[in-house]
Amino acid sequence: MHIAAASTMKHFFLIIFFFCFFFFQEPQAGPIHPHQLTHPLDPLTKQEITLIRTIVLKKYPTKTYTVHFHYVGLDDPEKSQVLKWVFSGTPTPRNAFVIAMINTETHEIIINLRSSNILSDKIHNGNGFPTLTVEEQTEAIALPLSYEPFINSVKKRGLNISEVVCSSFTVGWYGETKSRSRVLRIECFMKSGSDVNIYVRPINGIIILANIDEMKIVEYNDRSMEPVPKAENTEYRASHMKPPFGPKLHSFATHQPQGPGFKIQGHTVSWANWKFHIGYDFRAGLIISTASIYDVEEELQKPRPVLYRGFISELFVPYQDPTEEWYYKTFFDAGEFGFGQSMVSLEPMHDCPPHAHFLDVYGTIMWRHTETGIPNQEIRESRSDVSLIVRMVVTVGNYDNVIDWEFKTSGSIKPAITLSGMLEIKAVEFKHKDEIKKDQHGTLVFENSIGVYHDHYYIYHLDLDVDGVDNSFLKTNLKTVKVTDKSSKRKSYWTIETETARTESEAMIRLGTSPSELAVVNQNKKTSTGNHAGYRLVPALPVHSLLTEDDYPQVRGAFTNYNVWVTPYNRTQKWAGGLYVDQSRGEDTLAVWTQQNRDIENKDIVMWYVVGIHHVPCQEDFPIMPSLSTGFELRPTNFFERNPVLKTLSPNYVEWPKCTKP
Amino acid sequence: MHIAAASTMKHFFLIIFFFCFFFFQEPQAGPIHPHQLTHPLDPLTKQEITLIRTIVLKKYPTKTYTVHFHYVGLDDPEKSQVLKWVFSGTPTPRNAFVIAMINTETHEIIINLRSSNILSDKIHNGNGFPTLTVEEQTEAIALPLSYEPFINSVKKRGLNISEVVCSSFTVGWYGETKSRSRVLRIECFMKSGSDVNIYVRPINGIIILANIDEMKIVEYNDRSMEPVPKAENTEYRASHMKPPFGPKLHSFATHQPQGPGFKIQGHTVSWANWKFHIGYDFRAGLIISTASIYDVEEELQKPRPVLYRGFISELFVPYQDPTEEWYYKTFFDAGEFGFGQSMVSLEPMHDCPPHAHFLDVYGTIMWRHTETGIPNQEIRESRSDVSLIVRMVVTVGNYDNVIDWEFKTSGSIKPAITLSGMLEIKAVEFKHKDEIKKDQHGTLVFENSIGVYHDHYYIYHLDLDVDGVDNSFLKTNLKTVKVTDKSSKRKSYWTIETETARTESEAMIRLGTSPSELAVVNQNKKTSTGNHAGYRLVPALPVHSLLTEDDYPQVRGAFTNYNVWVTPYNRTQKWAGGLYVDQSRGEDTLAVWTQQNRDIENKDIVMWYVVGIHHVPCQEDFPIMPSLSTGFELRPTNFFERNPVLKTLSPNYVEWPKCTKP
Repeated sequence: MHIAAASTMKHFFLIIFFFCFFFFQEPQAGPIHPHQLTHPLDPLTKQEITLIRTIVLKKYPTKTYTVHFHYVGLDDPEKSQVLKWVFSGTPTPRNAFVIAMINTETHEIIINLRSSNILSDKIHNGNGFPTLTVEEQTEAIALPLSYEPFINSVKKRGLNISEVVCSSFTVGWYGETKSRSRVLRIECFMKSGSDVNIYVRPINGIIILANIDEMKIVEYNDRSMEPVPKAENTEYRASHMKPPFGPKLHSFATHQPQGPGFKIQGHTVSWANWKFHIGYDFRAGLIISTASIYDVEEELQKPRPVLYRGFISELFVPYQDPTEEWYYKTFFDAGEFGFGQSMVSLEPMHDCPPHAHFLDVYGTIMWRHTETGIPNQEIRESRSDVSLIVRMVVTVGNYDNVIDWEFKTSGSIKPAITLSGMLEIKAVEFKHKDEIKKDQHGTLVFENSIGVYHDHYYIYHLDLDVDGVDNSFLKTNLKTVKVTDKSSKRKSYWTIETETARTESEAMIRLGTSPSELAVVNQNKKTSTGNHAGYRLVPALPVHSLLTEDDYPQVRGAFTNYNVWVTPYNRTQKWAGGLYVDQSRGEDTLAVWTQQNRDIENKDIVMWYVVGIHHVPCQEDFPIMPSLSTGFELRPTNFFERNPVLKTLSPNYVEWPKCTKP
Repeated sequence: MHIAAASTMKHFFLIIFFFCFFFFQEPQAGPIHPHQLTHPLDPLTKQEITLIRTIVLKKYPTKTYTVHFHYVGLDDPEKSQVLKWVFSGTPTPRNAFVIAMINTETHEIIINLRSSNILSDKIHNGNGFPTLTVEEQTEAIALPLSYEPFINSVKKRGLNISEVVCSSFTVGWYGETKSRSRVLRIECFMKSGSDVNIYVRPINGIIILANIDEMKIVEYNDRSMEPVPKAENTEYRASHMKPPFGPKLHSFATHQPQGPGFKIQGHTVSWANWKFHIGYDFRAGLIISTASIYDVEEELQKPRPVLYRGFISELFVPYQDPTEEWYYKTFFDAGEFGFGQSMVSLEPMHDCPPHAHFLDVYGTIMWRHTETGIPNQEIRESRSDVSLIVRMVVTVGNYDNVIDWEFKTSGSIKPAITLSGMLEIKAVEFKHKDEIKKDQHGTLVFENSIGVYHDHYYIYHLDLDVDGVDNSFLKTNLKTVKVTDKSSKRKSYWTIETETARTESEAMIRLGTSPSELAVVNQNKKTSTGNHAGYRLVPALPVHSLLTEDDYPQVRGAFTNYNVWVTPYNRTQKWAGGLYVDQSRGEDTLAVWTQQNRDIENKDIVMWYVVGIHHVPCQEDFPIMPSLSTGFELRPTNFFERNPVLKTLSPNYVEWPKCTKP
């Protein structure tokens, strides 16, 4: 969910770009200078964004036009151009892609940043609206506070208007056939004295609809009155709490005397055997690009490509309450609210391990063996696992999403998602479960407070380029073989059957229905024993959408019909829920693109993977949710000739210095 | 897999008891003294084991009898007695349970350790034999080395007998109806010079069967000759490798100036809000008992019980090659080889984080929120996650199992399994995949080397006592509701239906077939809003057996027919594969016990959970496998009134001292 209307964030041009990564790398913390451009996928610099603004406002001067920027980002070059740059330094075009509302029309503008020319300027006429800006949401949520009927509703409830805080919510699409204005629902909450946990104190029973082009309230209905839940025990800031506190955890220190194990040049990170680029996008947030791994065994002695691009394309959060005040809550956090726009800065010492080496993570085992089988020899060999984690936190209103990309020296990439933040709470009259006679569509997590059932579906765009761009998608199915003759004392065993998906329809997978291993392989690159070099998906717990396929939210979020999809590379097919998601009608989703059923065998392909969580709230999630994590692994599978970390030694351990004066 | 016949391990009485835990706690590292007995579930002390030996050998003097001890462990008191001790210090009986082969009979002997009396001495007459001892395996694997036909076979292959190392393998049961002797298969491998990775160099084509009661080879068949795979690049010890090494990882230091956050008294660990007991068993290895959590919000102000007992009851590893030399490989590592007997010591700095604070793990986020929705306020609150991990490593021959129990201040317990070690390799004539014309039941991971398909099924015994012994098992099914009238603009949503399993058959669950949440709850304990206090199972990726249910290995490992089972507490039903597993016929498994279909509603119940991995080997797994991890979570669900770590502060970070002289 959904708002993000922080009045302290004045302008979306001020891109907040805080990974754990950049905390102690001050020069890179802000926008970079043009001469620092070291990679064709570097995000736009502050100067470039200023230039774009100047170019657009020159064509559409504000004297004559109202101009609002809804998306400004890199118009990334074609992959072939980027790879030419990677391999031979050939310069690439540097273009920006802008979505701006100019008067009431949506313009798609492409600007050449080298020549400062507008290359194209098209008007979008289809359904769906661009990502909301923070400014228009900030304006919209202020509307009720000066709207007489709402002020009366607040008074009638005995509440104090000075403690009311409102939030904006996208309305979705429910089969309307006529085109509709840009509207938002506004819901309001109560602060309680200094207690800032507004989400647990909704003012229920009031429907407010605001037209954000006209910036006015166009529908208002005070339907019913429910008590606002109490503030007791809902404060989450330590500075505002009274003792007793929980168990006191012992203090600790960590240190890397040689400094952190990674190097950053521009936006390119080198660490151990990995090299990759970190980009930022207003909509996607963090983007990992051109990740390659150095293989000591490889004769060519150059990095082997693995992942051309990886990012979260969309996050779909359908709530499961069909009633008038909740049915519409089926949010698309990237397309509607901007996952990148909602990035927040990380708290050192809490969100990341402390100090300059927060990124090298130690503690587990990379591989080990104790040999007890050889007489008179005791052999024990083990290597520590050290990882590099790139982390961002995206807070879209109540929920906090911690997005990690973990790189391992073994060649694995382990993306992970950790959910925290607040539940969306529905205020009800009940104080005890026994009073509830019909489905309230959630759990009574506190008196008068229902935590409503919902899902979180994150769809990853994983453009793997395993040892080159032409790859195939392999399903290795595990099949029971029954032994019906006397050839074995066994009655059964399993073996594998490998299928290469030829077209998109053959690569639509609902995980968990039958045992299989899924991999992206390079059929042009074989190991010495003849296996295809590949990367395998080790999935998270499979979760499937429970909405019917014809339901409107499901049509819009149809990329959740399957857990895995494979498409041919297409530079513009980035957004699984479509380019224009607010009030979209599902006409531009991954599910629609794949109806072309394009060839995907031995082509440049993209794997899309949906990680889902069904969330039945429990009391522990109130008033703030303990982290719940899930994740998956992209694991090299016959990519290396042998264990690639056989000869990777454990790092040295350094003793704590004993000084008389610390 | 399966041997463990280290000739350096002279006697199984020398229990190896190395958790990371005890490394820097020297006084607790060895067996404890009787006056140190601080808990009725403390493992047997060295003195007690000596006493048991004396008592048994007094009754069965070695002049007259041959006596072999196959199991010596605590005969744990009834739970009611243990809980009386926990709550009021009432002393419990202290008995030992012994399985000994006396002459050719299997005796089950119970000894009162306080009075030194034998309380009972029964003979086991059913099918199945006790866990193998290291001594008999050590003797058996030496047999081929002086067996003339084998020496000739080795010569015929041009190999050097001085480099041959043999291993012992259990034979399973394949429908034989007559009772059979205690026999083992012996397979042999080649060391290569100083290279110790024997598992990747099997001598194929020879079947050796040894009778271990008579300690002689009873069947021998040299069927075929395959090349022994090359030693090239199979050494895994850094001390025996030549440069170039992998990327150099930066050194690091960690330190807890206040010392580690946990306290150990006897075998009881206190850390943060947790208190639990760590036991050891010859068969199970690590056992977590009487785990309770302190709830700051609870009026009673005493620890709340969570887990009475948790351990891995069995580990079933069926290989999937039906051919004469492989079909029988369907191992039960706990029952046949002793998971506890196979525990190995951990390597400091590599297997565990360094120094005294290896157990407090830092770095992730316990919960967080950034509030952007309140005008003119910027709020960012986050708490570090700190966990306590109890770790053991069990090496059964080629495979290394890293078994973790992670305790979190949020009340979660996260057991995890990490697999490393070597594949079982089948030697074949092929050097390239293209030469293979029929199913080889594995992957060609190196020339002449097939890594055979197999599974790993770990079954956890999870005796949760959520706020008391009487608990129920709840299935919360997520169901789609279709909206067919005009009551909502939605066409569908999901809601939950909760069922309480009344009997064992209602609690047999194949995960992944339909969306549900499974929990053990206390129906006698409600929160203030009326929810039942519970702990929920957040499962690993569901894996199901692919063998047919009537296949012999599946009958013996029938506990893999379902992922989840629930039984009433029964002190003696500990071993999901039966008490006597070697050559068992599946007559004493969890699947048989549950045929009674006992009541489990509002009773003292045990949840059994199977974590599985289908293993299709890949080249990266050769010659030693990079760690592959899986795990699950027992997560409090309406157990606490609210987020239990709301008031748990992050630990302090301490600066690295700057001294002139370190």
